[in-house]
Amino acid sequence: MGKEISVMESVYAKNDKLAAEFNRRLTERAIFCVNVMGAPGAGKTSCLIRIIEELGLSALVIEGDIESDIDAQKLEALGIGTVQINTGGACHLDAPPVSEAFGGSGFSKGVLFIENIGNLVCPAEFMIGEHIKLLISSVAEGSDKPYKYPLAFEKADIILLNKRDLLEHVDFDTAFFMDGVKKLNPGAPVFEVSCKTGQGFGEIAEWLKNKAKPVIM
Amino acid sequence: MGKEISVMESVYAKNDKLAAEFNRRLTERAIFCVNVMGAPGAGKTSCLIRIIEELGLSALVIEGDIESDIDAQKLEALGIGTVQINTGGACHLDAPPVSEAFGGSGFSKGVLFIENIGNLVCPAEFMIGEHIKLLISSVAEGSDKPYKYPLAFEKADIILLNKRDLLEHVDFDTAFFMDGVKKLNPGAPVFEVSCKTGQGFGEIAEWLKNKAKPVIM
Repeated sequence: MGKEISVMESVYAKNDKLAAEFNRRLTERAIFCVNVMGAPGAGKTSCLIRIIEELGLSALVIEGDIESDIDAQKLEALGIGTVQINTGGACHLDAPPVSEAFGGSGFSKGVLFIENIGNLVCPAEFMIGEHIKLLISSVAEGSDKPYKYPLAFEKADIILLNKRDLLEHVDFDTAFFMDGVKKLNPGAPVFEVSCKTGQGFGEIAEWLKNKAKPVIM
Repeated sequence: MGKEISVMESVYAKNDKLAAEFNRRLTERAIFCVNVMGAPGAGKTSCLIRIIEELGLSALVIEGDIESDIDAQKLEALGIGTVQINTGGACHLDAPPVSEAFGGSGFSKGVLFIENIGNLVCPAEFMIGEHIKLLISSVAEGSDKPYKYPLAFEKADIILLNKRDLLEHVDFDTAFFMDGVKKLNPGAPVFEVSCKTGQGFGEIAEWLKNKAKPVIM
């Protein structure tokens, strides 16, 4: 496996370099970039809609999907600008297609959200030009997720626990979830939210504005 | 990227060869092998508990996790034999660790369930010795999953739509989901189930018994 491992290391190194260059380009254009990660069905697009609504800043979404443009259509219908990337099979986004897709957008001075492929594993391994990583988990997924998928929780700068409205209908141990997160990533704030009711998104918008300020203003 | 692609092709070819050999070994020992796939939190372990209960056949579960043995502990507590594989980061199971983990089990004449890593993308690309692939999706994940993650739905021999009990609390379009599945995989049966109520598992056990009979009997 020696050859395969060295190929992977060179893949990571090349990607990290390109991601860092892309991040510099974004910063120069006063763009704060958020890498949005989560399992399939965690509610990434629905959370983005709520966040962008609350944020009141100029925003662009790069939509990463293996196939389809269902989410981009949803966002466009609400007047949110999108750029679609279809990976055709790849399980995560990496820097080359993201920086290329952004290229023609003409976007500046605002927040760029990159909605990664629905996958709680691989996206956490690849930088794509972001200033921060935002992870979305949901109570419907169960409270053991930090223990089973530690890297994503470890690398996140902010964590949303979504579908709070389903809490009474599912078997979810909030204390166990929070303990798991705290052990991996004691500094990351966890916001309990519901896209259905809107609960929690005002606080997230405040948190994001503070983080974005040094880049955008 | 030429070198990287050829390395990946050789990885697939080596894996497929080993998976086919492992499948032959299992068949010789009258073991019917089921590759269980689904997103994080789809309910793979809970479904397995219900299926094994209804099946009334000798069963062994190989538990694939990146880290932790939470699911194996749950199964063992119910008297279900398990073998744990921790991939330490890898986003799917492939044939080498599975055949090696099975090696010492002494299991024969029954059903071997292999619970893959929670991931709706990569596991569908790797054979691991199975006779059939069983895919679990849940209504909490949303009805667009077949459109967004087509390969897993295309390759499945049987599909479980889990968490039926949450249907009235989530925004799920059953007809849209079923249409998506039918376009990708018209032959695969879809069973609507609930691990909470037990709904649907009797029918799945019957279906599995019929498939397993030529191998086990």
